[in-house]
Parts: sequence; structure tokens; C-alpha cells
Amino acid sequence: MKVAFTSDNIAGASESVFKAMMEAAQGDAMPYGNDDGTAQVTRMLSELFECDVDVFLVSTGTAANSLGVSAFTPPWGSVLCHTESHLLNDECTAPEFYTSGARFVGIGGVDAKMDPVQLQKLVNQKIGDVHSCQPSIISLSQVTEVGSVYSLEEIHAITDVAKTAGLPVHMDGARFANALLALGCSPAEMTWKAGVDIVSFGATKNGVMASEAIVVFKQALEDKGISSEKVAKELGYRRKRGGHLHSKMRLLSSQMIAYLTDDLWRTNATHANAMMALLQDGLKTVPGVKINTPAQANMLFCTLPEGMEDYLLAEGYAFYGGRWEEGVVRLVTSFRTPKEGVEAFIASAKAFAAQ
Amino acid sequence: MKVAFTSDNIAGASESVFKAMMEAAQGDAMPYGNDDGTAQVTRMLSELFECDVDVFLVSTGTAANSLGVSAFTPPWGSVLCHTESHLLNDECTAPEFYTSGARFVGIGGVDAKMDPVQLQKLVNQKIGDVHSCQPSIISLSQVTEVGSVYSLEEIHAITDVAKTAGLPVHMDGARFANALLALGCSPAEMTWKAGVDIVSFGATKNGVMASEAIVVFKQALEDKGISSEKVAKELGYRRKRGGHLHSKMRLLSSQMIAYLTDDLWRTNATHANAMMALLQDGLKTVPGVKINTPAQANMLFCTLPEGMEDYLLAEGYAFYGGRWEEGVVRLVTSFRTPKEGVEAFIASAKAFAAQ
Amino acid sequence: MKVAFTSDNIAGASESVFKAMMEAAQGDAMPYGNDDGTAQVTRMLSELFECDVDVFLVSTGTAANSLGVSAFTPPWGSVLCHTESHLLNDECTAPEFYTSGARFVGIGGVDAKMDPVQLQKLVNQKIGDVHSCQPSIISLSQVTEVGSVYSLEEIHAITDVAKTAGLPVHMDGARFANALLALGCSPAEMTWKAGVDIVSFGATKNGVMASEAIVVFKQALEDKGISSEKVAKELGYRRKRGGHLHSKMRLLSSQMIAYLTDDLWRTNATHANAMMALLQDGLKTVPGVKINTPAQANMLFCTLPEGMEDYLLAEGYAFYGGRWEEGVVRLVTSFRTPKEGVEAFIASAKAFAAQ
Amino acid sequence: MKVAFTSDNIAGASESVFKAMMEAAQGDAMPYGNDDGTAQVTRMLSELFECDVDVFLVSTGTAANSLGVSAFTPPWGSVLCHTESHLLNDECTAPEFYTSGARFVGIGGVDAKMDPVQLQKLVNQKIGDVHSCQPSIISLSQVTEVGSVYSLEEIHAITDVAKTAGLPVHMDGARFANALLALGCSPAEMTWKAGVDIVSFGATKNGVMASEAIVVFKQALEDKGISSEKVAKELGYRRKRGGHLHSKMRLLSSQMIAYLTDDLWRTNATHANAMMALLQDGLKTVPGVKINTPAQANMLFCTLPEGMEDYLLAEGYAFYGGRWEEGVVRLVTSFRTPKEGVEAFIASAKAFAAQ
Repeated sequence: MKVAFTSDNIAGASESVFKAMMEAAQGDAMPYGNDDGTAQVTRMLSELFECDVDVFLVSTGTAANSLGVSAFTPPWGSVLCHTESHLLNDECTAPEFYTSGARFVGIGGVDAKMDPVQLQKLVNQKIGDVHSCQPSIISLSQVTEVGSVYSLEEIHAITDVAKTAGLPVHMDGARFANALLALGCSPAEMTWKAGVDIVSFGATKNGVMASEAIVVFKQALEDKGISSEKVAKELGYRRKRGGHLHSKMRLLSSQMIAYLTDDLWRTNATHANAMMALLQDGLKTVPGVKINTPAQANMLFCTLPEGMEDYLLAEGYAFYGGRWEEGVVRLVTSFRTPKEGVEAFIASAKAFAAQ
Repeated sequence: MKVAFTSDNIAGASESVFKAMMEAAQGDAMPYGNDDGTAQVTRMLSELFECDVDVFLVSTGTAANSLGVSAFTPPWGSVLCHTESHLLNDECTAPEFYTSGARFVGIGGVDAKMDPVQLQKLVNQKIGDVHSCQPSIISLSQVTEVGSVYSLEEIHAITDVAKTAGLPVHMDGARFANALLALGCSPAEMTWKAGVDIVSFGATKNGVMASEAIVVFKQALEDKGISSEKVAKELGYRRKRGGHLHSKMRLLSSQMIAYLTDDLWRTNATHANAMMALLQDGLKTVPGVKINTPAQANMLFCTLPEGMEDYLLAEGYAFYGGRWEEGVVRLVTSFRTPKEGVEAFIASAKAFAAQ
Repeated sequence: MKVAFTSDNIAGASESVFKAMMEAAQGDAMPYGNDDGTAQVTRMLSELFECDVDVFLVSTGTAANSLGVSAFTPPWGSVLCHTESHLLNDECTAPEFYTSGARFVGIGGVDAKMDPVQLQKLVNQKIGDVHSCQPSIISLSQVTEVGSVYSLEEIHAITDVAKTAGLPVHMDGARFANALLALGCSPAEMTWKAGVDIVSFGATKNGVMASEAIVVFKQALEDKGISSEKVAKELGYRRKRGGHLHSKMRLLSSQMIAYLTDDLWRTNATHANAMMALLQDGLKTVPGVKINTPAQANMLFCTLPEGMEDYLLAEGYAFYGGRWEEGVVRLVTSFRTPKEGVEAFIASAKAFAAQ
Repeated sequence: MKVAFTSDNIAGASESVFKAMMEAAQGDAMPYGNDDGTAQVTRMLSELFECDVDVFLVSTGTAANSLGVSAFTPPWGSVLCHTESHLLNDECTAPEFYTSGARFVGIGGVDAKMDPVQLQKLVNQKIGDVHSCQPSIISLSQVTEVGSVYSLEEIHAITDVAKTAGLPVHMDGARFANALLALGCSPAEMTWKAGVDIVSFGATKNGVMASEAIVVFKQALEDKGISSEKVAKELGYRRKRGGHLHSKMRLLSSQMIAYLTDDLWRTNATHANAMMALLQDGLKTVPGVKINTPAQANMLFCTLPEGMEDYLLAEGYAFYGGRWEEGVVRLVTSFRTPKEGVEAFIASAKAFAAQ
């Protein structure tokens, strides 16, 4: 079997994650998040983010994102996000479901990053008009759906609009660690210090089987006049109501603890990003291959010359194609992607190009 | 630490479950249920139930129950279940959420088993009247919320009503294995052969960390004129929309495979039921203790004489009390409850009674 | 055609209502409640209730009730109401729809009036427990579904429970005027002075074609720590979202103005109640007829001796029967019920009894 | 007071409508659509459309549109409509509400008419993929939001896409009569003969106070393999659940009967369209005025030269501006717009231009 660049969700989990799960499962533990591990996760994430946070563990990113925005969006509200965002393209109608039927409004912008000018226009439109949905929260994806990463300045451009409009900001951080390493800043700097109020802190795509943390920056909310206590209370009921309150919560908390221990998250994302850099650098040297959006983290969209896609698939490599413009493929590396696999892939691409 | 009878969800997982999870997580696997393990689960459950089934794995019982009934219940429908059922008492408003706001109607009946006579009356009431919700599915809990178990005859009494009314029947099998062993029949006999069309096949309370299977009996549905293909299609979208489609589905499938392998489910439930029998028999010999509902599986509600509850808690035993009538406590055994723990508990109760 | 006691919704409208509608419809008027008439309705209802109120006009009682409670009930909330209430029995699943899937919990009590003791128990149950829906509002029907009327003391018994639990109180006043005249008190005394915070002020059953006012007592809400501004804002969006914001709102406002002018509401309800008194007094003299719940307003449930129901229907009288226990019928009088019709009905009943 | 072009919803109702309402309201009538008038409406609309139809009367266009599409759209479905459609811009989140949280997807196209090429692309995208909402119905507005009218060829271009994709087609006919007269065809030709399956047949904007008919073309649905009986049943429950089943339905049915009698609908729309033609022709002669979209029915978007908007408003004319690009205003005529008012408006515009 050749290397697969299908997605970072095809890789399993790091060893320490399994070890932690197994240890945590010995003996009895109180259910529904009243276990010691869950409390520990909150402490660890407060430390990681350098501030007091509320944490809600769930087992999927769809749940994390949909629940996260739902706590701020009344049924007549709207969530402003990029037209190519996961919320609008890959979660069926989970966002509408969790918000009891709010509207999700797509904002344009290059490289799947929202254009602050378009955003500014929309946040002030028809405010107080009962005939229109009302802007309630802004959600940005970091890493974006095309593999780009918002710079701190770009995040600020979005959150500044939010601040003047009095709106909270959500970050879909399914690939939070990959983005963070691309920016080289601290978790605090990429989030609440940059105006973000709530994060879907993803771990599942980076070495964990199923554990995502909804992280709420309490002081950030209070600074916007939003009661963090009310948000936390709502998320508690909403999580249960969505069927996402695990009885054996230690399954989720133990994974997250291992993920946060000894910087596993950092180690794993560093590897995934490095493999993507290697892959991208290699592909740049292959005649006919076009980089569509420069990969800053662990995902790349590029256009292959005619015939190359089929050739590589026939060789046994795996990746997604055929979903976008002719010849466009998506390549994703993970914490487990082998260096030799990447090199072999580049070699194969070169071999085809040399034909 | 003394033995805890708080719930069967406080116990961890069986060793083989963990071993299976770890093994399954090596290497790559296709996401979202396209892994080999998920297909294997369907095969194993088809074999266990001796018929062709559709399977949808989720990680919580709330999701399994709510999703299960939602596929049969329009927003103007009603779900008929016991007034003491989990659906009506322990899942917040998840049932309403997943059905887009249907009505959940409580039916009375002793030992938390629906009274077929009451049920009969309700299934024929206001049919076709737009001012009233319309009976859409009947849901029974096996084991019930008070620890009793429907006999096959009692199940038939319910499903006969359903059949004449043309309604499907759902079984909340959070403690399916415990009930099955109490009856001593086959899985098929307790379900589709008895008129049940869809089951929440619980594993989490019996040796698994988080894995519940929604099992749909295809032929049973067809026999009622309901398209099983439509139901399966709906459940696929509904699961995704609820955020319950795991990307690394093998986390759930591997647990379920281990649970079904070498009759682990049977072994675990046998132990839990045996420990309850030991506990119940012991308590019957303690002066002043009253058995409220004879335990047939692994859960017991009994009334302790004044002062005994506090005494036992002070001794270090754990269980739920203070939620029902004065002195009523709930005791639950699990696949891991130690025999010595049960014996010590009885001895302590006797010691108090002898004071 | 003999007199019909089917319902008070079979009668048309008072002449002055039509005159007002026709006059209001001349010329242009701003849409969506920005017409002068709508502002006038608010002034008139503020005067009627002797306090500052917010008003939302809608065209059906189902909308008024469902919207009214929805502004106070989160999707994980519960609405406590009588088991025989309209909310639970006659509005399909509109209540669940408008609350995004909250739970409606039935409270028992004689004569379709909630038992304060049962209510007290439920408002304190499982508060803060995410596994349970959370009591959010109490709704009482005045007139009740069986034709009884809560006394002021009985209202206070309910609202006192609400106050100690910090819950708002909704009154389903589909027959508000009939109840008020039965009690002989002022609108203020039967509502906010008695602890009621929001009323569905019905007019449709009492001389109007289609106009119901959701009336919010602003100070009453503030006194409970609930922002009346937030409630008003919510109701504005919720009404629009439900499709209940009429463009030509003057259709609704003109009816309500006529209803409130020259005490039309009082005149009409006085007649309806008087006709019921006449009917009830007459029926008491008919051998074999049993009054089930003494009618205090304009609705009566009674049990007819065997054969009488069929006889009266055959004679050409109209009323509902066959929906409850054997022989039970419902008789409703309206602002238009003719005295001679009532007398003829009693005479026919006597004629049957004399056979 | 000068003439107002604010909207066609600011005009009252035709005299015959009122006369009919008043007559219908005498005496008793069965409630909830069981009155004779409601049956008559169905007969009249079947005749008008030259086929067997099911009819559901409601009192607002928001309800008609949202209910109409909801009967075909599961919660994971999507409704394809123009980005400038009423559904997406003017009904708050009523569409999401009534569909239990489906997605509304905007399709581009000039003059607010959907581009069939874009539509074709979307109806085939991600079919069967649980990660994506599923195209469920196509909705087109006739007249469009900018005052243009789909030609029969343009309707066919849309419905042909629908047919190949197996999707039903909804027409938002808030200004049905105005569009029909613009095309000069029969109601059947503009609807089911052109591939439309369900229509919101608006009357409120054309001489009625509040009455909109959801008209379902039964055979058209059957031809697409959709059970019209199921749709009718659903719409019955959905209307009640939305609080849109009027008890005194004759209020709605009598208006609709008058509207359909003696071609009142045609007379009224003819006048409105003629006034718009007069207005548009006049404006074309005013220097500096730019027609944005040629008005085909009774609505016009044009751009006024600097200062003219303020001048006309100061003169006492009423219309909407300030909501779109600089200088853009919307002018709408109605069945009641006086010819002299139009002429005076043009004269005033010319006077300003001559300064």
C-alpha cells in the first residue's frame, strides 16, 4: 500500500493516546463529565490558552462547530462564514439543526478567507428589521478549507469588524495545531488575544481517535457584554440535547489529556506540516503541476497535468480528485505520514511528467 | 474504596475491547463508516439477530434512541412510551430535538411497563385530526427504568397493538444483554420475532466505552409497509446532521466487534445479572429492607429502613438515593462488580439492621 | 336550522367589527403593524389593563399561545400546563414547533385547573440537571377546557408557586372576556395583579373574525428580573418567522379596536354567559341530565341520558359528543346564541325525558 | 397626501371583497375550513387552473411560501432559489423554521431570474453524500423581486432542469396576477403546463386584505412520482402546526371567492400593471432617470439623478430608497393607484430635472 493523502482523518491515534485511554478506563469513574479527567482537561486548556476557559468535550467536529455557534445564535440569527467553509459545505444541515433553523450566510474572499470589506457590509445590514435574519456570530476556519492560514493581521481584520458590530467570533479549529505552527505564535495570540471568543479545538485530525474541545474564553465574552455563565449553561443543555454528553466521558477526556501532555499536539502537527512542506516543495519541481493555494499547514490543493491523477491513483496512491475543476486534487498529510511515502509520491509524479 | 452501585456507566471497559480498539487504530482506514470494521459489525449483528439488518453506530444512548424514533416520526407525530421511560425523563429534550418537535406521550403501567389497554386507547385516538399529534411509533424500554423486564408475552401484547394500528415499534435496549439473559431467549425472539422493528442495541453500559448500534430489522419494516431503504437513507442523513457520524468510525466499530466476539456481551451481562441476584437475595434477608420492584436484570429499586441509607453512604458505598420517595435507593451492578463487594454491602446492611 | 352549540367559533362577527374593518381598509396604510390602528390597539389595551403593555396581534389562538410561551422557553425548557389544556390537546405540535422542541408537561387537577401542590413539586425538580428539561413557564387556561373558571384565589395559588420558582406565568385567554365576567373583577385583577405576566387575549371566539392579541405586562416581567425589552424583541422576530406578521395589519387592528370600543367585548361575553346560565339552569330541570362541571362562563360539559344525544341531533341541534365518556356532550354558547334557541333546546330535552 | 409607491401592500381591499366578507360572516359556519366557502374556493381554483387542485388558505405570503416548500423538503434538504428571492431576503428565517432547518441555496442570474446553467450544476452536486444538504425543490418568484417576469420559455428552462433531476417546482406567486397579465397566457400555461407543481397564489397584494392560497397541482406531482395525497396530508398538519389554520376560515375563503369572482383579480392587476406602464413610460422621458430593470408588471427599480429622491420625498410622494446602491428606488403600483397620482409624480420628477 502506497501513502494516502486522502485526509488527516484516515490516520489512527498516537500511542500515548491509547495508553492514556486504557489507563483511564480502569476502575470506576463518575459519569457525564464528573470524572477527574474532565476537570483536568479544563485546567490544561486554561493553561495552554493562558486564561480561564470553559470546556465542553464532544466526539465530532460537526458537533463542536454546530454547538459552538448555536449558543450565540437565536433561530432568527445568522452566522457569517466563508462560502467555502465547512459549516456551509460539509456538515449537511447540522448547523441549521443545532441553531433551530438560523441562516448561514456565505462571505466571499480569496484563499477561503473571509473578505473583511464584505463582512463589514453584512454585519450592518437590516439590523433590527424583523424581515431579515440578524447577524449573530462570525465563524472563521483556521486552517481554511483550501489549506491557507489566516495571519494574525487577517484574524484581527475580521475580529475588528466583529467588535465594532458587537458580535462574538468563533474559530473552527479542526486543524488548530497545524495553523498555530504555521503562524509560530501562541494559542492565546491566535485566539482571544486576536479577538476570538470561542474555539472548536480539534484533536481528532491530529493523533486522537475522537475528541474535540469547545473552548470558551470567558473574559473575552464578558468584555463583549455576553454572560459567559449563560453561555456555559446553554452549552451544557445543548450538548445533552444533541446526544453528545458521553456517559463515560473519560473516553474523551483521557484522549485530550494525552494530546495536551508533553506537547503531543505540537509534535504531531509539526510532523504533518513538515511532510506537507516536503510534498509541496517536491511538487513545485514537477513539470506541469500547479500549486493552487500555497499550503501553509498540512493541506494542499494543486492542479495536476492531464493524465497524472489517473496515473498516480493507478500506482496505488490515494487522494481526493474529481470533485473540483478538471485536474484539481487535494493532498493532506498527517502526524503519521511517512517521509518515504512523500518522496515516493514525488518521484512517481516526476516519472509521469518525464514520460 | 467500597463497591459502587451508582450505575453501570461508571465501570470502564473490558480488556478485549481495548485491545481491539488499539489494533484497529493502527494504519489508515477510510473515514465515516467506510472502514472494514463497520461492515463487519453489520455482518455480525445480522448473524446475531438471524436476519438482514441495517446498522448505524453512534456513541451515546441518547443519540441512538432519539435518532431511532426520529426516522419514523414526523414533526406532527407522537411517540408513545412509558411515563417513566428514559425518553421522557433522562434525555433532556433530545427526543423533541431529533424529531423536529414531535410529542412524546407517556403511557402508564406497573413496573414501568406500558399497559397495553391504555396504549390501545391512545393509538386510535384522533387519527387524521389535524388538531392532534398523530401516533407514529411505540417505544418500549427493555430493561425498564425500574429494573423490570418485559416477558415475551408482554412484548407481544404491546407489539400486537402496534400491528393493528400499523405502527412500528422501537426498543430502547440500553441494557439489551441484561434483559435477554433474564428472559433466556434469543436476540431474534426478543425483537423482530416479537414484533419489534428497530432497536437501540446498547453496549456502553456492559463493557464498552462508547458504542451503541441502531439496528433496523429490514424485513420487519417491509412487512408493515414501511420502506427500509427510506429509513436507512433518512438515518444516514439524520446521524450526520446530528453530528454523530464519526470520522474515525473504527473507534466505534472496533468496540462493537470486540463486544460481539466470543460472546463478550453475554459473559458481561451474565456477571452483572448474577451480582444483582446475589445482592437482591442478600437484601431480602436484611430486616426492614423492602424490594420495590423485583430485579430481573442488573438494576434494583428498594426501600431502606430509616437511617440505613446514610449509614451505608458513610461506610463508603456509593449509590443513588434521595431522588424518589423517602428511603428509596437504586442499586445497579455491572460486568465488573466484585462479588466480595456485594457481600460486604449486604454484611454492612445487616450490621446496621442489627443495631 | 336549530341552534348550534358546537363552538363559539362558528359564529361570525359583530356588526361594528365589520364596519370598522371596512372603514380601516379605505386608503393607504403602512404595512406590518406600522399603521395607526396597531398603535391605537396598544394604547387601548394599556388602558384596559391599567398598565404599560406590549401587544402582538396575530390571527389565530394557536399562534398566540405558542408564540407567547416560546419567548420564555428555551429548547431545553418545559412548559407546565394542565393535562387537559389546549396546548397539550388541541394544537397539534404547534407548541413544540414554536419552542424549537421544548417539553410540555401536563399537571393534573380537578375541573381542568392545575393542582398547585403537583405544580410546586414539579417546578423544583431536577433544576440544573442537564438530563432533564427545565421548567420555564407556567400556562393556565382561563376559561378552562371544561368550562370552569379559576377564581382569583386559585390563580394566586398558581402564580405564588411561579413566583417562588422565579417563573413567568402565561394565561391562555381564548375566552378571556367570558372568564372575566364570571369573576366580576377587572382585567388587571385577573392578570398582572394576580401574578400573570403574559396573556393570549382572545377576541375571535367573542365577536371578531380573526384577531388575537399577545399582551405582555412589561412591569410584571421586570419585577421577575426578565427584560421586557428582550421579550418584545424576540416576539417580533418570532412572529415574523412564524409567518404571522400580517402585511395589512389593519385587518387585525381594526377588529381589535372595534372589539375594545364601547365595551363590545363585555356586551358579547355577557350575552354568551347569560345564554349558558339559561341553558344550564334549564338542563338542571331535565330528568336524567347530569352537569359534569358547573359552567361558570359559556361552556358546559354534561352527561345526557341514553338516547337523548341522538334524539337532539336528529331534531337538528348541533353540538359535539362521542369524543368523551358515553353520553358526554359539550355545549358552547356565543355572543350570538338566540334565547329562543336555548329555550327550544331545553324544551326538546324535556320532551325526550318525558317519553 | 400624494400618491405612494411604497408597496402594493399599503392599499386596502376592493369593495366586492368586503361585501363578500360581510355576507359570509352572517350566521353560523363550520370552523377550520369545513365551511362551504372553502370548498367553493377549491372548485374555483380548479376551474381557474383547469385541473384538479388541493388548496390550503393562509393569511400571509410568508406562511404560503414556507409551508409550500416545507412539504417537499426534509430537514437535510435544500431549496434552490434566486439569491435575491423573497425566501432568502425578506422572510427572516421562516423558511428554515418551516422546513425544520433545511438549507436555502441562492442561485445567481440576471434580473433576479435563476440561471438554468448554474441551477443544473447544483441539482447534481453531492447527491447521496450525507455531508451535504440534498436538493429537494426549486422555487422561482413570478413576478421576481426586481419586477421582471419569467417568460414561458424561461420558466421551462428552469422546470426542465427540475424534471431531469426529479425535483418538484414551487412558484412564489405573491404577484401571480400581475405576472400572468404581463405574459398574456392562461394560469395553467404559466404553471403546471410549464412544469410548476405548487404555487403560492397571492391575493393580498392585489385587492384582498389577507388571503393566500397554496395551490397544489395533483396530477403534476403524481407525474413526478410524488404522492399528492401525502403532500396534502402533510400540508394539513403543517398548517395547523404553524398556527395558520383559521377557525373562522370563511374570513379567508370569502375574500378569495370575491377575488376569483367576475375576474376581480384580472381587473385589479390590469390596472396596477397599466399604472406601472404609464409610470415607466413617463420616467423614461425624465432626463437623468435610469431604468434598472424594465418593469413588466407592477414593480420598478430605477436610479434617480442626484437630489431627485429627496426632492420627491419632500414633495410628499412615498416610496422605498436608501436600501440599495446610491440613488436606487423601488416604485410599486397597485389596483388602487390613481392615474392622476402617477401623472403628478412624473410631472414633479420632470420639474426637478428641469431645475
